[in-house]
Amino acid sequence: MSIITLLTDFGSFYPAQMKGVILSKLEGKDVTFVDIAHDIPPQDVRAGAFALLSSASFFPTGTIHIAVVDPGVGTKRRGLVVESGGQLFVGPDNGLLIPAARSLGQIKSYEIALRFEASNTFHGRDIFAPVAALLAAGQSAASMGPRTRPKTLSFGEPVKTDKGIELSVIYVDRFGNLVLNMRKLPVFEVRLKGIKLKRVRTYAEGRRIEPLITLGSHGFAEIAVNQGNAAEAFCLKAGDRIELEEI
Amino acid sequence: MSIITLLTDFGSFYPAQMKGVILSKLEGKDVTFVDIAHDIPPQDVRAGAFALLSSASFFPTGTIHIAVVDPGVGTKRRGLVVESGGQLFVGPDNGLLIPAARSLGQIKSYEIALRFEASNTFHGRDIFAPVAALLAAGQSAASMGPRTRPKTLSFGEPVKTDKGIELSVIYVDRFGNLVLNMRKLPVFEVRLKGIKLKRVRTYAEGRRIEPLITLGSHGFAEIAVNQGNAAEAFCLKAGDRIELEEI
Amino acid sequence: MSIITLLTDFGSFYPAQMKGVILSKLEGKDVTFVDIAHDIPPQDVRAGAFALLSSASFFPTGTIHIAVVDPGVGTKRRGLVVESGGQLFVGPDNGLLIPAARSLGQIKSYEIALRFEASNTFHGRDIFAPVAALLAAGQSAASMGPRTRPKTLSFGEPVKTDKGIELSVIYVDRFGNLVLNMRKLPVFEVRLKGIKLKRVRTYAEGRRIEPLITLGSHGFAEIAVNQGNAAEAFCLKAGDRIELEEI
Repeated sequence: MSIITLLTDFGSFYPAQMKGVILSKLEGKDVTFVDIAHDIPPQDVRAGAFALLSSASFFPTGTIHIAVVDPGVGTKRRGLVVESGGQLFVGPDNGLLIPAARSLGQIKSYEIALRFEASNTFHGRDIFAPVAALLAAGQSAASMGPRTRPKTLSFGEPVKTDKGIELSVIYVDRFGNLVLNMRKLPVFEVRLKGIKLKRVRTYAEGRRIEPLITLGSHGFAEIAVNQGNAAEAFCLKAGDRIELEEI
Repeated sequence: MSIITLLTDFGSFYPAQMKGVILSKLEGKDVTFVDIAHDIPPQDVRAGAFALLSSASFFPTGTIHIAVVDPGVGTKRRGLVVESGGQLFVGPDNGLLIPAARSLGQIKSYEIALRFEASNTFHGRDIFAPVAALLAAGQSAASMGPRTRPKTLSFGEPVKTDKGIELSVIYVDRFGNLVLNMRKLPVFEVRLKGIKLKRVRTYAEGRRIEPLITLGSHGFAEIAVNQGNAAEAFCLKAGDRIELEEI
Repeated sequence: MSIITLLTDFGSFYPAQMKGVILSKLEGKDVTFVDIAHDIPPQDVRAGAFALLSSASFFPTGTIHIAVVDPGVGTKRRGLVVESGGQLFVGPDNGLLIPAARSLGQIKSYEIALRFEASNTFHGRDIFAPVAALLAAGQSAASMGPRTRPKTLSFGEPVKTDKGIELSVIYVDRFGNLVLNMRKLPVFEVRLKGIKLKRVRTYAEGRRIEPLITLGSHGFAEIAVNQGNAAEAFCLKAGDRIELEEI
């Protein structure tokens, strides 16, 4: 049995076309699809990279991940297969796959050199899905094309400032929690936009509507409002820079 | 083959982590995942309980349902496995599982006493998913921990008033239909906020934009606006109390 | 292994009930579900027909598609099984299935004459899901009922005007791209609401926020705003008529 995950910014019905292509190519071979997310903010490669990074390590050896957040579709940007920790990642060469692949160990990247009859706007269906089907059918990553050095993507590092630290928001979940580019809690008490954030181990330690900072289940610091919505309360969205002031 | 359903308020990518954990633990054993809903209003345990209640009876014997709407995550609230009518329910002890389990017959509840390495914010992935995998692999509910008495949850009962009946809205679907805590239609003609609701067997009996009351496919009374949106028209949301006045 | 796709305007948890019914009837027979879309605008049969048309050809022979966008549920509108190109389509007789079925070749339509215990509001679960289960279990389309002539649905044809062509918007995707009822690009340069649309092969040929017209991966002309949202920019939605003026 093959496990194939899909992560895109496509919303509905385009992901189903990708699954149809894979099922057609696999001709009855058993496959389990897992949708990681299809509601990545349109063309937000960093948000997609974060969601894939958060999820990949929970899947078993042999899993094939297709990820497509692809503002460069139809240009000369290359397609990649990346191998790491016994899992395979298929998608555009724009950094999307790399944090997840690196989190599993040493990576090997291959440029997709096979040629497909492809539309100019939907390589997820016309290139990446058929490549995933070939991999699920047992072909090696190396057989897809030559070794290459992929484009990387960084969530950036916390920057020390006069007053505290500057960070960026890399993801906003549906609770309005703000995921930050920092893999630990600040060691000092902090304020955001003048409002103190209570450092907690779990949301339930906060009072109702109290702003919190905690280490999320994904390993990144996260600002939340207990039983509320931090993104709305602080008027912040993915991509925004923030400063946490030391109290 | 195991059937495992998932119901959460997580939106995207966290449910995929739960599936990844289960697939990793099952090591190739065949599993069919069915997503019941991941768009339950954040932390609305009653709405989640309603969605699970509406769905469980349609699944075959042996189905394992994981449900996680969990404002108390990280506190001392317990985890449960509930057995009823040949199906299993896994989730927090906050009432979420109980209406669905009770609808299938006599329930047996077990406190999850197994210890897992768990984050403070995501027991769906760190506790309930591994427990579901153990159950899918053939372990018994009783082997998860001691029998216990679960917290219950009630949708409340209709209350007779001077003018008619008082009810509460337990769910709003994407059509804006308002599901009420009453398992039959009122026997008299009714008004809501001064507007008459036509009692119908099917939406198509109403004229365009006419407010209706019908017995929904889930067995609860439901207020709809034919080809319109009752939640918007009446300015109501899940949790609101309403009064249906007898005409 | 059976492949069963689902396309509805139900949002969440009602599609899971349909899957539960199918799994119950199939008693362990292997089935792969693919959700095409459950976010079709409520009761927008044309949008549903477009999504199904766009997707069906990518699925393998033997696939069973259940599609339910069904404003006439509970009335005398009939249920259909349509056979075409080795695939089967199950749903209401309101045109929803026909463009997709026709795109695969000659169609044969059968009225569902089997009688089920059905609610008045949810034939997707009470009739179409059980029919799909029977088909997946090996029964023929012809065994469901007599041959019939289905209601058809047309996306309409482009209309020549004094200034250019009049078209309609048949779908708006989550990027805000406007899918039009025309299966090629205009041969002349065009304006929409006074604003020039650049004819491109791929979105990336446009400058940031530049309005574009391209032939989408589904084979229909599509208006987009590069890294923006055309539906918002031009204040248009599914069903709207537009005029493309020749420059």
